[in-house]
Amino acid sequence: MEQTDVLVIGSSAAGTVAALAGKRVNVDKKVTVIRKEEKTLVPCGIPYVFGSVKTTDNNILPSTKMFDDAGVNLKIGEAVSIDRDNKVCKLKNGEEVAYDKLVLATGSTPTAPNWLKGVALDNVFTVPKDKVYLDEMQKKLKDHHKIIVIGGGFIGVELSDELRKTGKEVTLVEILPHVLELAFDQEIAVRAEDILKERGVIIKTGSGVKEIFGDKQVEGVLLNNGEKLEAGAVVLAMGYRPNIQLASDAGLSLSKEDFIKVDEYMRTDDPDVFAIGDCAEKRDFATRKPCTTMLASTACAEARIAGMNLFKLCAVKTFSGTISIFSTAIGDTGFGVAGLTETKAREEGFDIVTGAFEGMDKHPGSLPGTKKQMVKLIVGRETGIILGGEVVGGLSAGELTNTIGFIIQNRMDINSILTSQIGTHPLLTASPAGYPLLKAAGNAAVQTMFNN
Amino acid sequence: MEQTDVLVIGSSAAGTVAALAGKRVNVDKKVTVIRKEEKTLVPCGIPYVFGSVKTTDNNILPSTKMFDDAGVNLKIGEAVSIDRDNKVCKLKNGEEVAYDKLVLATGSTPTAPNWLKGVALDNVFTVPKDKVYLDEMQKKLKDHHKIIVIGGGFIGVELSDELRKTGKEVTLVEILPHVLELAFDQEIAVRAEDILKERGVIIKTGSGVKEIFGDKQVEGVLLNNGEKLEAGAVVLAMGYRPNIQLASDAGLSLSKEDFIKVDEYMRTDDPDVFAIGDCAEKRDFATRKPCTTMLASTACAEARIAGMNLFKLCAVKTFSGTISIFSTAIGDTGFGVAGLTETKAREEGFDIVTGAFEGMDKHPGSLPGTKKQMVKLIVGRETGIILGGEVVGGLSAGELTNTIGFIIQNRMDINSILTSQIGTHPLLTASPAGYPLLKAAGNAAVQTMFNN
Repeated sequence: MEQTDVLVIGSSAAGTVAALAGKRVNVDKKVTVIRKEEKTLVPCGIPYVFGSVKTTDNNILPSTKMFDDAGVNLKIGEAVSIDRDNKVCKLKNGEEVAYDKLVLATGSTPTAPNWLKGVALDNVFTVPKDKVYLDEMQKKLKDHHKIIVIGGGFIGVELSDELRKTGKEVTLVEILPHVLELAFDQEIAVRAEDILKERGVIIKTGSGVKEIFGDKQVEGVLLNNGEKLEAGAVVLAMGYRPNIQLASDAGLSLSKEDFIKVDEYMRTDDPDVFAIGDCAEKRDFATRKPCTTMLASTACAEARIAGMNLFKLCAVKTFSGTISIFSTAIGDTGFGVAGLTETKAREEGFDIVTGAFEGMDKHPGSLPGTKKQMVKLIVGRETGIILGGEVVGGLSAGELTNTIGFIIQNRMDINSILTSQIGTHPLLTASPAGYPLLKAAGNAAVQTMFNN
Repeated sequence: MEQTDVLVIGSSAAGTVAALAGKRVNVDKKVTVIRKEEKTLVPCGIPYVFGSVKTTDNNILPSTKMFDDAGVNLKIGEAVSIDRDNKVCKLKNGEEVAYDKLVLATGSTPTAPNWLKGVALDNVFTVPKDKVYLDEMQKKLKDHHKIIVIGGGFIGVELSDELRKTGKEVTLVEILPHVLELAFDQEIAVRAEDILKERGVIIKTGSGVKEIFGDKQVEGVLLNNGEKLEAGAVVLAMGYRPNIQLASDAGLSLSKEDFIKVDEYMRTDDPDVFAIGDCAEKRDFATRKPCTTMLASTACAEARIAGMNLFKLCAVKTFSGTISIFSTAIGDTGFGVAGLTETKAREEGFDIVTGAFEGMDKHPGSLPGTKKQMVKLIVGRETGIILGGEVVGGLSAGELTNTIGFIIQNRMDINSILTSQIGTHPLLTASPAGYPLLKAAGNAAVQTMFNN
């Protein structure tokens, strides 16, 4: 039987990073990754396969090379069961691999609700992290001009914009009043929606889908408000559910939301088994409540933590809770959010103030390519601590969102921000006197007791 | 006699921000700004006036409007003396303004060394923050094809690149082995130099200037190594010295380096007089030594701190020492640095390790417009604390540099970084599994005791 010190099951972002981090801190240990796919996709790149990136072959995660360089063993195969008593993982082909430490990075599967009539019709698709499926889907979409995307979260929005780029007539259906409304405060979601409309995506919000209709092949979608939309293909972008079968069969505990239960070292209730990424339980950084945020980037943080705690725990290498931190771009406008939105913070009962400022992302604003840049901060009224931030700007909005992410994770307060030094440059950032992050902090400060 | 609660002298970035911050926290106080110029320039935009921005009129700091909106009074005039006993400032036209609190933001003047023969010849210029001078200089430069820029710091590099864009033959002279070598570690300075060369700037490094020659009008420059360069115009970009005459005449203490002495509240030795920006003493965040970094962005941090401490001090609103934090762009390659370089850290005797990683600034790398992105971190070996970082990348390098700035100012260590969550997006950032900041942290970690 094959033996390994560390066995990682799954090799999307989380599994890849866990294996590399595990090997980095345990140079002498044998680290093995098992995955089903010969080639794995860059998960966040998937919507872009349908437009800018052109094919899945341009969207391959170079994990094989990364493993070779780092001395991690890669095994193609499907794990079908885990015998935790004997610490053995069984593969579909009958092979067995004995492990000392096991990391589950089994990912997630798109939601295709079985209560929805018509989900099984031909040309109704989901968006799984599966190269073979996506290649086939992309081929079939070529034959259809009218496409309906159901679900206005990030995947739905990005996919709609990309399909539109290829000349399709795309209708995006969202049950909430606005697209991206679970991610951003409404005034920012509206901006995203307006840009999408300008770019030619047809948007239908405020009504859910009653049924998908057609005869064998999909013909369209009937909304709850009675509106009937015709389409040659329908894409469901209604979220993802964690892949927990393997863990559940092995007797590991699950959370109420059906994620694999983990502690802040990313250990399951078996101290030799870790779980990370989309399949692992999440708790919000600020609310401390369970949350269902599935992001490759935060999954990688969990992966680094699992990798660093495999053989001995270290109390300063723990997970501090999930902050919702993500960004997207529609055309050349970047949108980002880190931590709590105002809406979420108020819902949860936080006593907050907000401050916003809109400036320019280069300076002077007369420079070619300058875009508006808006930052909104969500700040605890009594503590001055930054709980969240939102950004709309040019293509530097993603990194600016990460700056806010570090501010939140360091629990910086409004005074620490206002006394901080930033660097500015005409071609790269807003002006020193009008840097939106700092101006937003100033605008928030006047509403707190920290102003004077 | 005119009375004001707060008088700010100077209205470049620092003076503007101090007045606005002072008004923000002291709504009921009268805040007045005195400045010489009708229109003030965006300081960091000045090199770009000679190329991308086209004229100084496109590079105006909108301070007048900002003052109007905030209720700050603006007075055009030149302060010529301060009577600290009676708390009165005298203007050139004989007017007097009585103040309760005074903020000196008198800026800096370009260095034009009088030991250098030929500095006074016609068509030898410096780069002051002076619209009238720059307009005249720009007009005169139009008549000359061959231009020599002396000094390969940021201003010299940016100006050379911009002049080159307009079709001039530009030679950049730097006494050190490479341009930007005081700002970046050599391997990064070399990259900047290579890009400048590709863009057609002629670079002469490793030899200083012996004299500027010509007969009334400049004809060229003689280097210390004997090389003779011809030119119709010469621009000196040899640094700036603080404007301290007003402070010195008023009996305020100066530092050994001839800046106005200040404490961490930005107070001079007169508790009612503050000094900020290029004219105010600086102390390095990490080395705690005096330093001479003059940056509009860090000046604005000093300005916010002065503004917030005018009438009552607050111990959590103090200046923590200057971090060298700046960025620049050559073509579409962004360069940034925050905190100590490796060179500087070793010179100062810090026990450090470094970690670097080069990836892509979008993902997958097949996306159009993707640039390489390199991050280098300088880390205390015993503490794991991040002392500095350098970035080479696309146009998001400026904001990424600011992320590193917040990491340094929060005194984050390598484990806090490795357990942090970032957000990634195909069109906006590197990939979650290959985010250079985190990979560099991992590469640094293996050299510390914090790895396992």
